[in-house]
Amino acid sequence: LLSRLPNVGTTIFSVMSALAAEKGAVNLGQGFPDFDCDPALVDAVAAAMRAGLNQYPLMPGVPALRQAIAAKVEALYGHAYDAGSEITVTAGATQALLTAILCCVHAGDEVIVIEPAYDSYLPAIELAGGSAVTVQMALGADGYYVPWAQVAAAVTAKTRLIMVNTPHNPTGSILRAADLEALADIVRGTDILVLSDEVYEHMVYDGVRHESLSRHAELARRAFIVSSFGKTYHVTGWKVGYVAAPAALTAEFRKVHQFNVFTVNTPMQHGLAAYMADPAPYCQLPAFYQRKRDLFRDGLKHTRFRLLPADGTYFQCVDYSAISSLAENDFAQWLTAEVGVAAIPVSAFYRKPRESGIVRFCFAKKDETLGAALARLATL
Amino acid sequence: LLSRLPNVGTTIFSVMSALAAEKGAVNLGQGFPDFDCDPALVDAVAAAMRAGLNQYPLMPGVPALRQAIAAKVEALYGHAYDAGSEITVTAGATQALLTAILCCVHAGDEVIVIEPAYDSYLPAIELAGGSAVTVQMALGADGYYVPWAQVAAAVTAKTRLIMVNTPHNPTGSILRAADLEALADIVRGTDILVLSDEVYEHMVYDGVRHESLSRHAELARRAFIVSSFGKTYHVTGWKVGYVAAPAALTAEFRKVHQFNVFTVNTPMQHGLAAYMADPAPYCQLPAFYQRKRDLFRDGLKHTRFRLLPADGTYFQCVDYSAISSLAENDFAQWLTAEVGVAAIPVSAFYRKPRESGIVRFCFAKKDETLGAALARLATL
Ligand SMILES: CSCCC(=O)C(=O)O
Ligand SMILES: CSCCC(=O)C(=O)O
Repeated sequence: LLSRLPNVGTTIFSVMSALAAEKGAVNLGQGFPDFDCDPALVDAVAAAMRAGLNQYPLMPGVPALRQAIAAKVEALYGHAYDAGSEITVTAGATQALLTAILCCVHAGDEVIVIEPAYDSYLPAIELAGGSAVTVQMALGADGYYVPWAQVAAAVTAKTRLIMVNTPHNPTGSILRAADLEALADIVRGTDILVLSDEVYEHMVYDGVRHESLSRHAELARRAFIVSSFGKTYHVTGWKVGYVAAPAALTAEFRKVHQFNVFTVNTPMQHGLAAYMADPAPYCQLPAFYQRKRDLFRDGLKHTRFRLLPADGTYFQCVDYSAISSLAENDFAQWLTAEVGVAAIPVSAFYRKPRESGIVRFCFAKKDETLGAALARLATL
Repeated sequence: LLSRLPNVGTTIFSVMSALAAEKGAVNLGQGFPDFDCDPALVDAVAAAMRAGLNQYPLMPGVPALRQAIAAKVEALYGHAYDAGSEITVTAGATQALLTAILCCVHAGDEVIVIEPAYDSYLPAIELAGGSAVTVQMALGADGYYVPWAQVAAAVTAKTRLIMVNTPHNPTGSILRAADLEALADIVRGTDILVLSDEVYEHMVYDGVRHESLSRHAELARRAFIVSSFGKTYHVTGWKVGYVAAPAALTAEFRKVHQFNVFTVNTPMQHGLAAYMADPAPYCQLPAFYQRKRDLFRDGLKHTRFRLLPADGTYFQCVDYSAISSLAENDFAQWLTAEVGVAAIPVSAFYRKPRESGIVRFCFAKKDETLGAALARLATL
């Protein structure tokens, strides 16, 4: 059987979670909370099921949920998407990403991907028949940043799409207004589309604001913007996300979406729509996670790990070169098996693994869990 | 924006449901029950959510659900799939179909599709970069059947995959043991794969048995077999299905699956696993739906619709040529708008619409709904 994805194994997140379980390690690898969601959200979904909302919803999503999404985006970022023709509910953000890529990337097209990159991006481009052109983020004193001149230099006549991710997994860096300007300068006057992965939109710290691409008219008119309820509401296993995009892009997205998943879980959509009426849960998320981030960073300050900046997401990258000269994957395995704390090697986010001596921890964990991990890491 | 699916509009099921809603018609078009699922199933999902089972499950699915699926398939069809390496839970059957096609169809490969065919098959093949070779079912006195000699004649050196669907949507016909033999004779000694859409596996009537391709060793070793909990448990909006396939095929399936949806709704999977402990609901499904089928057929006997056989699925096809000479799509629109009963034109299941004067009704409806539809149809 000839593989469509010959270079792909099992995703690093599954590999490290399995190893963590096997070794009884504290799992700070795969990104998911080890605490539960708001019981009110569970009640809202249970109520929808009990109300008999268990059959196919409309293909693009339950109208009340699409309206709630559009209202949130407009309130936060000032861009008014039409809930009817510009918002589509997806079975999580990963499905949104693949579907967006499949709907616009043709055989032979190039897609610019900025590395480190979430591990679904390159296989998705490969499945669409496109080819990825990678540009590496640079690492300065203020952390990772996108070298826009290199992105501009990577553009060719075949460039169909540029993918960005802010807040950025795994580095925790975020795009600033100047980054959006630089990207806009690259795409202005071209027909290059943009795919913006903003699943950590509600996790930004130190009062910095999330620069959704929807804020920028030149970008918004050509962008698919992807987000995720799993991250925002502590329900990563519910697999509900969405895509916001101008009507012409949404029309193409839905053509593929209807033949990928067709629709998304009905009672979950109704429950989420009801729960979104109160903006408090996502408005309070930055403070909620900043406290955990600070707790985790404070605990690591007295170790030989060097902390990288963490402006957004629920991830903290650390440089371990003062502790070990192992390659990242080996270090992550060793840390899991011998120290009892699972982490993700940042090299897994590159096509050609590059060794920077950096691993990623997830701090979306109970304080006790972070404490237990810190106690083990403090021995290093 | 250059479309990846230039010939695709909105799926016929959405179009007819929207028209039915607009016209206040009884909706016998899109296939879904208008009655609710077992409250015990809702309770099982609510219990899983309340137990905190809300984060990512294992990528291939919750082990208890995969084990319950494997046990069911072995009990019913005698084939023992390994729950660890041969069963994958999907976000509905449509996602399973696209993922199976994406994981094995390469650019330039041919896929044999038997028409009439569910409307996701051809776009899925197109997205994979393959090309569909269609063979039309023949319509005899006993209903629709697959002309295997024509399928054999359609095989070329480029044939990668043959798709079948039993029980068959929209015709309600089912493959018999002799059909499986004929298909096995075609693929024996080749490396052609088979994709079998068996989402209506528990809806077979008059004591006829479902010939799952998993019953046939020569087919099972090369087949992706797709099924759906939405159909079986009256929860089409939950979007949970599965794929059973030999380990080597499953490995390729999961490579794509992990970068399509990654995983499927956790509490729904746990709820379904608990509910599957009792085989009664699916064992009683044939009798449950046969009663509705017979009620609907009896009501139509006194009209000028000519009933086609309906051996399986929850669909009844009728020949309306004694009533109208309109093309199928026009007739379905007219029936919806003027008579107040929505149906699906069978021509929508062909790449080049062919006119046979046949529409499809869904009888997965409350007795009152069927009665209301019959009262309107009796005027014709
Ligand atoms: C899809 S599993 C991984 C979750 C995640 O986004 C991450 O850990 O980076
Ligand atoms: C995916 S919506 C249509 C449901 C169905 O399978 C049908 O009506 O044929």
